[in-house]
Amino acid sequence: MPQQKKRTEIAELGEFGLIDRLTAGFAPCNASTLRGAGDDAAVIAPGADERIVVSTDSLYEGVDFDLTYFPLKHLGYKVVTAAVSDILAMNATPSQILVSLGISAKLPVEALDDLYAGIRFACEEHKIDLAGGDTRATMTGLAITVTAIGHAREEQIVSRNGAGQNDLICLTGNLGAAYMGLRLLEREKRVLADVTDPQPQFAGYEYLLEKYLKPRPRTDILTALAEEKIVPTSMIDLSDGLASDLMQLCRASKCGARIYLERIPIAKQTTALAEEMHMDPVVAALNGGEDYELLFTVPLTMQERVMSLGLVDVIGHITPESTGCYLVTPDGSDIRLRAQGFPEK
Amino acid sequence: MPQQKKRTEIAELGEFGLIDRLTAGFAPCNASTLRGAGDDAAVIAPGADERIVVSTDSLYEGVDFDLTYFPLKHLGYKVVTAAVSDILAMNATPSQILVSLGISAKLPVEALDDLYAGIRFACEEHKIDLAGGDTRATMTGLAITVTAIGHAREEQIVSRNGAGQNDLICLTGNLGAAYMGLRLLEREKRVLADVTDPQPQFAGYEYLLEKYLKPRPRTDILTALAEEKIVPTSMIDLSDGLASDLMQLCRASKCGARIYLERIPIAKQTTALAEEMHMDPVVAALNGGEDYELLFTVPLTMQERVMSLGLVDVIGHITPESTGCYLVTPDGSDIRLRAQGFPEK
Repeated sequence: MPQQKKRTEIAELGEFGLIDRLTAGFAPCNASTLRGAGDDAAVIAPGADERIVVSTDSLYEGVDFDLTYFPLKHLGYKVVTAAVSDILAMNATPSQILVSLGISAKLPVEALDDLYAGIRFACEEHKIDLAGGDTRATMTGLAITVTAIGHAREEQIVSRNGAGQNDLICLTGNLGAAYMGLRLLEREKRVLADVTDPQPQFAGYEYLLEKYLKPRPRTDILTALAEEKIVPTSMIDLSDGLASDLMQLCRASKCGARIYLERIPIAKQTTALAEEMHMDPVVAALNGGEDYELLFTVPLTMQERVMSLGLVDVIGHITPESTGCYLVTPDGSDIRLRAQGFPEK
Repeated sequence: MPQQKKRTEIAELGEFGLIDRLTAGFAPCNASTLRGAGDDAAVIAPGADERIVVSTDSLYEGVDFDLTYFPLKHLGYKVVTAAVSDILAMNATPSQILVSLGISAKLPVEALDDLYAGIRFACEEHKIDLAGGDTRATMTGLAITVTAIGHAREEQIVSRNGAGQNDLICLTGNLGAAYMGLRLLEREKRVLADVTDPQPQFAGYEYLLEKYLKPRPRTDILTALAEEKIVPTSMIDLSDGLASDLMQLCRASKCGARIYLERIPIAKQTTALAEEMHMDPVVAALNGGEDYELLFTVPLTMQERVMSLGLVDVIGHITPESTGCYLVTPDGSDIRLRAQGFPEK
């Protein structure tokens, strides 16, 4: 955590004062936000014929972030991305968030100012209103839960369970960069643990840091899909890693999948750092997680239209459930996908 | 925490297995729950001309509950009450919840089964659907965030900010019982700390334990108000204590208040235990918190109608903002109300 010039204790402000300070400067920009922060609950006006889409996501200090190298402003931005990404994965437009904070007394008010500056930046960038929340003291580390609310017409909404036989598996962006960004930060933390005035070496890997510390939600994809009138048959956001999330989609859709290793997009910096660390970049791409890219399926007939977006790679296709989920290597071997991650051991 | 006969480690089930197990047996009962758990987000169909009301509430181990004496089944019930109570305070009908869990590996799966049994019981009792959530491993204690979603017609919705001059201040139930229940549990924990096979003494105070461990959301009040066609001018749920919550209502409504000590309903067991512990029961009622009762205001002309509900006490009235918030004692003294609680020191 960067050194704060001024340190105001949370106790100096009290609950009302703290909430007033943190939520100042959040001006609602969506007409659907009838009442926001400052009441028992937010009131949202659904658009005509629209459904409301709601998701919740938590990040915990020590598990999801390490405050020794995670700037709070970036953390604020990232929690909004994590929550909003679930709304995008339903093909819905995010419009409100509620932020529930568990804060420990060790954090000064200025640190929370930074956190909220990041939240505010994300809200402004993606036209999302802060519509409420909850602030509590905890005995332990920082815990942040963001509930994201969005809206969509019924016929636009995309679930995980609609993938059909031979559908193309499409992916936005590239994978593994966030994970390698985390590995880089962890390496520098280890190396510089006992150094006074540490100067971490990040040159050449700035993209990895940005993907890890400040991932952007793929609102651009939703706009592009809507413009091309493409409604995916299924969609999921990539938070746990391609292998795990593809398997979740296949499980919900009762199907299998074949994805091709050479088609999985991996950024140059990801490959470069993986090689430097004697790691396989494909492992980062398959199991790293926190990419916040979108994985979706479209019928085979839509191949040209989906490629014309210029934002998407087709990495494989859907197969019958009985065949399972496989990664096909360039030499033609099939490797069965395995989910990794939770619970961490 | 009670001894578990069987202990299944969370790691044995994995994330999918755990979520499947915990969410089994939750059958949606609201037509508005179009899609529930099992996708990136829940999809909710608003009723015609209805608004969606959303609130979020977190409980943290070590701050909001102590697992040495808080049975997980009751905790599950209570978190639903805490979240739903905010929806009720908007005069809206709760219909869905999302549950976000931060769990530590020290808890066996059977403990989470108990927690979800309590959540399921509350959902069934109040016709609420579990529509999603998030389960993460944490390094520290148990953290539970519940997002509650409800609905109401615009003209029914009641904010904190509508109290008018001379409005009557109305209160459901009685106050301080939950706080005295907590004090009783803490006392027995202290007394029995070094005892093998402890037998805590709760006889005569069962009501206090129930109010603390298993408070019921006041859905009955909403039904009663609707039947009598009473729409309060303002409303708030009592989670922080009467003094703090009344002051919040007055702050939002830009008014003052006078409440009368002898009109504040306090249960016999609350008074009895307070006397046994050499405490003033009024302090428990004013500052104890966690009552989950509703505090609301109605115009003076509605006094008879509101009293005819048989569920409500009129404890005072609204005054100009400049006069502040006061408690009037039987001897006619005015005591200025002060908010207590957050942040805990």
